[in-house]
Amino acid sequence: MRLDELRVLACTVLRRAGLAGHHAEAVAETIVAGERDGCASHGAYRLLVAANTIRKGIVTSNPKLQIEEPGPALVRVRGDYGFAQLAFARGRPRLVDKARRFGIAAMALNDVVHFAALWPEVEALAEDGLVSLAVTPSHAWVAPAGGTRPVFGTNPIAFGWPRPGRDPFVFDFATSAVARGEIELHRRAGKAVPDDWGYDAEGKATTDAEAVLNGAMRTFGGHKGSALAAMVELLAGPLIGDLTSRQSLIADAERGGSPIGGELLIAIDPAAFLGGSVAEHLAQAEAMFESIERQGARLPSARRYAARAHSLEHGVLIPSALHAEITKILETE
Amino acid sequence: MRLDELRVLACTVLRRAGLAGHHAEAVAETIVAGERDGCASHGAYRLLVAANTIRKGIVTSNPKLQIEEPGPALVRVRGDYGFAQLAFARGRPRLVDKARRFGIAAMALNDVVHFAALWPEVEALAEDGLVSLAVTPSHAWVAPAGGTRPVFGTNPIAFGWPRPGRDPFVFDFATSAVARGEIELHRRAGKAVPDDWGYDAEGKATTDAEAVLNGAMRTFGGHKGSALAAMVELLAGPLIGDLTSRQSLIADAERGGSPIGGELLIAIDPAAFLGGSVAEHLAQAEAMFESIERQGARLPSARRYAARAHSLEHGVLIPSALHAEITKILETE
Repeated sequence: MRLDELRVLACTVLRRAGLAGHHAEAVAETIVAGERDGCASHGAYRLLVAANTIRKGIVTSNPKLQIEEPGPALVRVRGDYGFAQLAFARGRPRLVDKARRFGIAAMALNDVVHFAALWPEVEALAEDGLVSLAVTPSHAWVAPAGGTRPVFGTNPIAFGWPRPGRDPFVFDFATSAVARGEIELHRRAGKAVPDDWGYDAEGKATTDAEAVLNGAMRTFGGHKGSALAAMVELLAGPLIGDLTSRQSLIADAERGGSPIGGELLIAIDPAAFLGGSVAEHLAQAEAMFESIERQGARLPSARRYAARAHSLEHGVLIPSALHAEITKILETE
Repeated sequence: MRLDELRVLACTVLRRAGLAGHHAEAVAETIVAGERDGCASHGAYRLLVAANTIRKGIVTSNPKLQIEEPGPALVRVRGDYGFAQLAFARGRPRLVDKARRFGIAAMALNDVVHFAALWPEVEALAEDGLVSLAVTPSHAWVAPAGGTRPVFGTNPIAFGWPRPGRDPFVFDFATSAVARGEIELHRRAGKAVPDDWGYDAEGKATTDAEAVLNGAMRTFGGHKGSALAAMVELLAGPLIGDLTSRQSLIADAERGGSPIGGELLIAIDPAAFLGGSVAEHLAQAEAMFESIERQGARLPSARRYAARAHSLEHGVLIPSALHAEITKILETE
């Protein structure tokens, strides 16, 4: 399937599932980006996840967004329980403008529904020439280091760094030891998980995927990953007046929808600190990237960019079973 | 030794070693804080490290600091190769003022010498009621995930969150798998290190502490820790026009001094996003902390705060051999 065909399909499905036109377009864009970059779990498959969340009444079809300015260098987009992509797209020009004017700026997305990765957002800000950081909580599924009961979400951290004339340096990872979808895949396949992925509901280490899903996942990197997970909760929860992962799970009320709550983005304009010497100092960053790649190590996102180059030329392969599930939405909704 | 006695000793030693009065006081303050909080490697012992770095001509005795405003929400302190503590102390009121006025602000410390932990700084900003993040590179000692040659420093990340009426939530950790001092201790004791701490100079995994010190350390948390280490390099190096860890090591020219270069601090005022509902949302953060501690897990810094309470009441114990080494500086310098 060519990417523009996938875009039309995604838009049509999301509109049929109930989203207003501009809302469907914003969400379709990230689904196409995920599929294009070879992130199967964040690609066309997510149409099913989005449709499920819409069907459960968690998402506002045609949200009335409100943009506020809580401080000179701050932007807040109240998302009215639309998907985060729409709020981000609407707030992005304001965030970019403020980062350029003040040197640094932050944007809170409040009352949004999350179902996608954060890298499309920090990549967009890198296209605008900005360095950025994005964090969001999810549902309380992850135990703190030293504990066995869920407190944190999978709490991703994404970072983007512009590289003139090249794909930006971007990473985006969960602070949980593995993605929740990975455990879900093991459950479906009836496969055991390693005994350091999580705990059962009694707080015991287990290799039973279903027990981990009903118990608690672990953070990556021991107490350091746990500290970062707490930071994400605080920055994109209480700091911006939105839900923690525990509150988000309670708000879901066992509907099994996507997490709702907030997101925080921080953007810095390199030109502010560097003035006329931007090129000289960005070259030092390039020297560091080169010292990583020269020894055969990969930069984060390298695999995504390789998949992207291939998809732009050859299109993407959607498994026919998945395609059938997606087009079924067109018939039934 | 009572803490005020240690403060006097530290100040006297640092002045004798060559620092001007206000410079010695700023550095002594963090050495007392480290000893007080039970961080032996960042306490009185650091007087020897500081004196060594001063003796090698790496530190300016009486630096002429310059404060600049590269953007409305940005502060830059040019440290003139004094210790970072002095530059931080001088810039702090500006950073606090800007964070309160604009909602978010950033401060770059440029051309400073680093030998201390970052937690005293984020803790100070938490006392000012601000949420903050601090990062700094060091010397190129750490290999990226997938590689075996040093690129990154031990690149710490520190975060502070104010808790009304309580010690703030603070973490500060190296993005390397372990502290470099830990490997050094193994070397001195002639003990093997675990084989996942680092590589020898040929890029092979090794349990020889000395080989790791001459080869490369690993990051914590695999590719995620490696991505964070790269982020720290970028934010506190090229973004603020200062050295990467590789450049800092080259600038050291095998003198074996403390890392020189930059540091970036970001501060956010919770009152900006939350307005009148600060108390309500900070209470949600407290609920999260409680859900961590209730299950017997510790918050980061809990051990430090316990040691602090003890030291404030009973003073600290300085090993007599260390005390002798420190007072020797008073005789020889």
